[in-house]
Amino acid sequence: MSIWFTEKQTKHFGITAEIKRTLHTEQTDFQKLDMVETAEFGNMLILDGMVMTTQKDEFVYHEMVAHVPLFTHPNPKNVLVVGGGDGGVIREVLKHPSVEKATLVEIDGKVIEYSKKYLPEIAGKLEDPRVDVQVDDGFMHIAKSEAVYDVIMVDSTEPVGPAVNLFTKGFYEGIAKALKEDGVFVAQTDNPWFHSHLITNVFKDVKEVFPITRLYTANIPTYPSGLWTFTIGSKQYDPLEVEEDRFHEIATKYYTKELHKAAFVLPRFVSDLIK
Amino acid sequence: MSIWFTEKQTKHFGITAEIKRTLHTEQTDFQKLDMVETAEFGNMLILDGMVMTTQKDEFVYHEMVAHVPLFTHPNPKNVLVVGGGDGGVIREVLKHPSVEKATLVEIDGKVIEYSKKYLPEIAGKLEDPRVDVQVDDGFMHIAKSEAVYDVIMVDSTEPVGPAVNLFTKGFYEGIAKALKEDGVFVAQTDNPWFHSHLITNVFKDVKEVFPITRLYTANIPTYPSGLWTFTIGSKQYDPLEVEEDRFHEIATKYYTKELHKAAFVLPRFVSDLIK
Repeated sequence: MSIWFTEKQTKHFGITAEIKRTLHTEQTDFQKLDMVETAEFGNMLILDGMVMTTQKDEFVYHEMVAHVPLFTHPNPKNVLVVGGGDGGVIREVLKHPSVEKATLVEIDGKVIEYSKKYLPEIAGKLEDPRVDVQVDDGFMHIAKSEAVYDVIMVDSTEPVGPAVNLFTKGFYEGIAKALKEDGVFVAQTDNPWFHSHLITNVFKDVKEVFPITRLYTANIPTYPSGLWTFTIGSKQYDPLEVEEDRFHEIATKYYTKELHKAAFVLPRFVSDLIK
Repeated sequence: MSIWFTEKQTKHFGITAEIKRTLHTEQTDFQKLDMVETAEFGNMLILDGMVMTTQKDEFVYHEMVAHVPLFTHPNPKNVLVVGGGDGGVIREVLKHPSVEKATLVEIDGKVIEYSKKYLPEIAGKLEDPRVDVQVDDGFMHIAKSEAVYDVIMVDSTEPVGPAVNLFTKGFYEGIAKALKEDGVFVAQTDNPWFHSHLITNVFKDVKEVFPITRLYTANIPTYPSGLWTFTIGSKQYDPLEVEEDRFHEIATKYYTKELHKAAFVLPRFVSDLIK
């Protein structure tokens, strides 16, 4: 007998992965949490039935959400990650020597707890002395922060369940206030094949708040359509105008300084979404 | 009751799509052919259990396999497509006004027949007077051709079944012979997540035959991992050095002249495969 987990990524389409065993399953205060060992992608974190991260392909998302804004900012010292309880973005943030402090605000402490247990190579850096882990509501944390952060990354789930507030214009306004005068912000903004309206709407909202707004993509096999988008809002620095000498050497498996710029070159049907 | 088609893209991972109805199913002389209507991707052609093309996402593959080599060559007149019985590559080839003749050599006439019937917006241009459709073995066609073609595209299935010969160094040598002295060749070469060795091996073989060899990618949701690769072999023209004025306006949904170059900027783990 073989056991397969199927995620319906749309009403009519999905992915299916063979499960060697279930490591943990729990209804937390915020969502259904499943940690399973898959045969193809290693350990996999699933929230409300949606794949969040896997050992095999996690590097793409974590590198691309972290390094693009961090290399856009010339001297990021104080960084905030909203969500991201698996710790993968924090791990990448700490690769930048300018970073003095990285704050993680994750609403669901159980995500942190079971990521540490079953995804240690992703969550391991949450113990670093530069990291401040807070189990708290990211929306509220943003609302009470003012001119504090150089870079803010929103590593949220889909805009259903606990993350629904993180896809509103009010939230982006709060982020702008929480950032310093030259701050940079990035959010994951789903895929253009099944959620094109979301990309259009978020881009429009972010553009009304930030003078520089850009969209970039990365390939993530376990995410719907395999093509993921990220929206950047920036007060001063353009991610497309990072000078060559700004890129320092960094250990990555996906991100490169050439890809930093190429990732913003969009397929026509994607660029049409943000015209 | 709902009916779902599942393709195991690897032994342990796959995609699953809801089927509204089966349009045709047949064991041809070469492979199992299924044409189904899916709820998410429209009509879908499946060969030996693998998704070949769908109405919703076909434009990515067909545009990217055609326009990159055709804009690389300054004056493509005589073009050969090996495989590609659905007609999608031919449709894109004909968008280039320099093309005087486009030959399609597809081994399985049933693919052509049922694509015309159920994928008319893909296969419709096979009736164009510039197109010569031959139901024949592509490997043999190449073997008997000498200095005939400006551009050859290999639009094959995976290297199992009828396409197995199309992934050999002998085939690439034949292609070099079949091309004119400034000819350009492209082949689809699977994905870097599950078939990394294939990419490495094909690139090495093509590099031993062609002075200019390059790898580029495109996102195709219904193909394994969503990240597809294409390998170019060229005798004289470098796809990265196409001058601005070479790009004429063309109706596309994925390809743009900016993406023509950005598609060659590879994630680090992919560029590591062809070092």
